[in-house]
Amino acid sequence: MTKFDITILGCGSALPTPQHFTTSQVINIHEKLFMLDCGEAAQLLFRNQANLRLGKLDHIMISHMHGDHCFGFPGLLSSMTLIGRTTPLHLYMTHDLVPTMKNIIDFFCHLAFKLVIHTLNPDAPECIYEDNDIRVESVPLNHRVPCCGFLFKEKQKPNRLLREKTDAYGIPVTHLARIKAGEDYVMPDGTVILNSELTEPSREHLKSYAFCSDTTFNPNMFEQLMNVDVLYHEATFIDAESHLAVEAAHSTAKQAAETAIAVNARQLIVGHYSIRYDDDSVVTAEAKAFFPNTIGAYDGMVFTIPEYE
Amino acid sequence: MTKFDITILGCGSALPTPQHFTTSQVINIHEKLFMLDCGEAAQLLFRNQANLRLGKLDHIMISHMHGDHCFGFPGLLSSMTLIGRTTPLHLYMTHDLVPTMKNIIDFFCHLAFKLVIHTLNPDAPECIYEDNDIRVESVPLNHRVPCCGFLFKEKQKPNRLLREKTDAYGIPVTHLARIKAGEDYVMPDGTVILNSELTEPSREHLKSYAFCSDTTFNPNMFEQLMNVDVLYHEATFIDAESHLAVEAAHSTAKQAAETAIAVNARQLIVGHYSIRYDDDSVVTAEAKAFFPNTIGAYDGMVFTIPEYE
Repeated sequence: MTKFDITILGCGSALPTPQHFTTSQVINIHEKLFMLDCGEAAQLLFRNQANLRLGKLDHIMISHMHGDHCFGFPGLLSSMTLIGRTTPLHLYMTHDLVPTMKNIIDFFCHLAFKLVIHTLNPDAPECIYEDNDIRVESVPLNHRVPCCGFLFKEKQKPNRLLREKTDAYGIPVTHLARIKAGEDYVMPDGTVILNSELTEPSREHLKSYAFCSDTTFNPNMFEQLMNVDVLYHEATFIDAESHLAVEAAHSTAKQAAETAIAVNARQLIVGHYSIRYDDDSVVTAEAKAFFPNTIGAYDGMVFTIPEYE
Repeated sequence: MTKFDITILGCGSALPTPQHFTTSQVINIHEKLFMLDCGEAAQLLFRNQANLRLGKLDHIMISHMHGDHCFGFPGLLSSMTLIGRTTPLHLYMTHDLVPTMKNIIDFFCHLAFKLVIHTLNPDAPECIYEDNDIRVESVPLNHRVPCCGFLFKEKQKPNRLLREKTDAYGIPVTHLARIKAGEDYVMPDGTVILNSELTEPSREHLKSYAFCSDTTFNPNMFEQLMNVDVLYHEATFIDAESHLAVEAAHSTAKQAAETAIAVNARQLIVGHYSIRYDDDSVVTAEAKAFFPNTIGAYDGMVFTIPEYE
């Protein structure tokens, strides 16, 4: 069972308010942390979360160059040095942001650690991170500037050992890790027992999460996001103001719900709230009317992806 | 009686904490607002203060280029445009910060108002702002980079009319504003009544405030700050760690108190707390032991300069 938590640090849009800081989230997969966007004060919001530790954060992914998604970046990096970080930090951003961000970091932040900058391709999905457990893909979004969302997918787990079979063949316990890793077993008499007879595929559900920060209604990403467990989708406007959503290259709550339906998501989280609505619940309610499994993000919310059947 | 309030938005040092945001203050003189330094999230802290209105803020003064004194700047400027600002904004900063700050503003902030950048001279005090009521001077500080504090001084008030005299001379009410402004009065028969006979100097106390953000113990500024009402002075260390203060070009709480004594201040406010002290009161207590009229700054504190006799 994999821990896969989404912590919303901020879910407001361009103008931060007393209710909502600007966009930033942290994905915790088995205590390996990924920050998605880094709005102003993200470092403080992060450190106010008892469940997060800055030392575990090695990857920061910025969706695009608008300030409400990246103004917290220089402060966070400066603080990392102050609290003694020495291990490399990986940053992911689109090409247009790189020179300015480098200048800011060079001028203000006296880093005591190595920075590895990964340039995101806003035109085609790419695998941007992979380890034994997960794979992260960029998701091209459609906004006013080059913009990427992020898709986190758990990878197929190792096969499950069939202990009754390994016992029946008298396979020594010291050898079981190799069987679990996929090897066949050669008996003392030379007979080969195929791995498929000794193990069965893990039936554990593979969790997945998609973060779509700022985008118009974007059918181009449907195939990539198909069957995602949890979809975070911006919902800056409501349907009555869909013309404004078009102008600003944002989405309505209804469009967020339509996206969740189209990709067969299990759960929709809406956010990137506009200050034009005094009460966010009008946004959440609109999405919920079309896609009942909708929740409205709030600053400080922790969503644990359940063990879906 | 002049309103002269100091609102502390943040008074931490390099690393923000749940207790203290980084440095930012707002001076309110008759509803004319001046922001001194602009640490990360200053825009939010400002807008959380019921007594402050962003539309009244026309001057932002940055003491130096360290991030804990200016990382809130791009977000604040972006938000000013979003909430409809069209009137010019005056920025004050040392020359070394100007090119980088201009680049950041050009890249991230789509300003709908004019920005007037004033370059501070970190080597000699200069008058950087003046109107009918106040005068603001830069205060050269001694830090690791070019750094200025700021001294706000109320200007001499207009003379007080002696109504019994103006009545005795039969001076028409419509003429009194000119007398108050300093003119002599010419009687219908040509006799000149000198202004000094018709008015007396205002005896109202002229308030003053000095903001010393980051500095070593700095006797060079004593003459300029002489008899200031309220001195805000950084106190990053305590005396037991004065060697660290020297290394980092900061001050101890004792040195802040010694400065208050040397300039004959009425009130000392200490801040720029280091995270090395779990409890700020150790800092305040040290300063208080030498200068009893000391208070420790806290985020959200509003200090109203009283009508000193």
